[in-house]
Amino acid sequence: MKRIAVDMDEVVADVLPKFLTLFEQINGRRPSEEEYNGKKLYALPGGEHLREALFHKGFFADLDLIPGAQEGIQSLLDDGYEIFFVTAAQEFRNSLEDKYDWLLQFFPNVPWRNFVFCGDKSIIGTDYLIDDHAFNLRTFSGKGLLFTAPHNLSETEFTRVNNWSEVLAFFEQEKLSHAANR
Amino acid sequence: MKRIAVDMDEVVADVLPKFLTLFEQINGRRPSEEEYNGKKLYALPGGEHLREALFHKGFFADLDLIPGAQEGIQSLLDDGYEIFFVTAAQEFRNSLEDKYDWLLQFFPNVPWRNFVFCGDKSIIGTDYLIDDHAFNLRTFSGKGLLFTAPHNLSETEFTRVNNWSEVLAFFEQEKLSHAANR
Repeated sequence: MKRIAVDMDEVVADVLPKFLTLFEQINGRRPSEEEYNGKKLYALPGGEHLREALFHKGFFADLDLIPGAQEGIQSLLDDGYEIFFVTAAQEFRNSLEDKYDWLLQFFPNVPWRNFVFCGDKSIIGTDYLIDDHAFNLRTFSGKGLLFTAPHNLSETEFTRVNNWSEVLAFFEQEKLSHAANR
Repeated sequence: MKRIAVDMDEVVADVLPKFLTLFEQINGRRPSEEEYNGKKLYALPGGEHLREALFHKGFFADLDLIPGAQEGIQSLLDDGYEIFFVTAAQEFRNSLEDKYDWLLQFFPNVPWRNFVFCGDKSIIGTDYLIDDHAFNLRTFSGKGLLFTAPHNLSETEFTRVNNWSEVLAFFEQEKLSHAANR
């Protein structure tokens, strides 16, 4: 059974809207897409304190789902893939319980046995990794898919998937090429 | 740089004394080694409720160190190994913060980046794994070392290390054989 490691933030959990709201609360205005495309929101002038929010209890507790993520995971499970949620949670001690509860709430179809809270994803030995960070894909030994987020728009090094429909289309293609190679 | 995954419970964190005390509180007597050798304490008559304690906040917060673990980890770091603490914490949602704080307290020389809280260790791609459970070593692709605990005394499938001195002796031998093969 092929194994897919799926990152949480910006792949199944939508961090950006919460950051945009925080930015607005601090600066009295929302930044435009032109301002934040290609970078992290906390790299913008006025965004310096945004990253601190990640260390607070509750930040990760009420994130919205990335559109199509639930259906996408279910579809991959139906196709016989084993799904592991692999998140670099360890920088944020106070995120651990929030992330755990969030996964149980939105992905009851993935067992706790397949939750991985780590720091350095280079020790993960799955067949695929879907992640929004090129640095995670760069040290990954399997096939990496870059899930589009505003901060990674200029990356060209990896197979890009812009949304969950494109994730499923990629794995549909994998199925066809495996069948052809049999 | 070679990577060693190190399990927490029964390898660096001493769970047994706490379980023995709990058993005594429940049953009014301590079980003998003859009773619990070769099995888990919660498999004994009178031990049925012990395992519930693992789900409580605080259980993993004040565990003692396995003798020699701190010095052993430091010695492996000095020898240039990269250490990852890999613990099957995900069954126990309430253990996550306790385990995190415990590691920071006793192993400040290992960065949070190298903490891995998982369920199924078969996705871990390190060179070595030191663990007290044969089932974790069985699915591991690198070299596994079985760290002796009462419950695993009858296992004969893996290289056994009885204590941290034997862990260090094993890696000393690895160094010599690598030098000889160069």
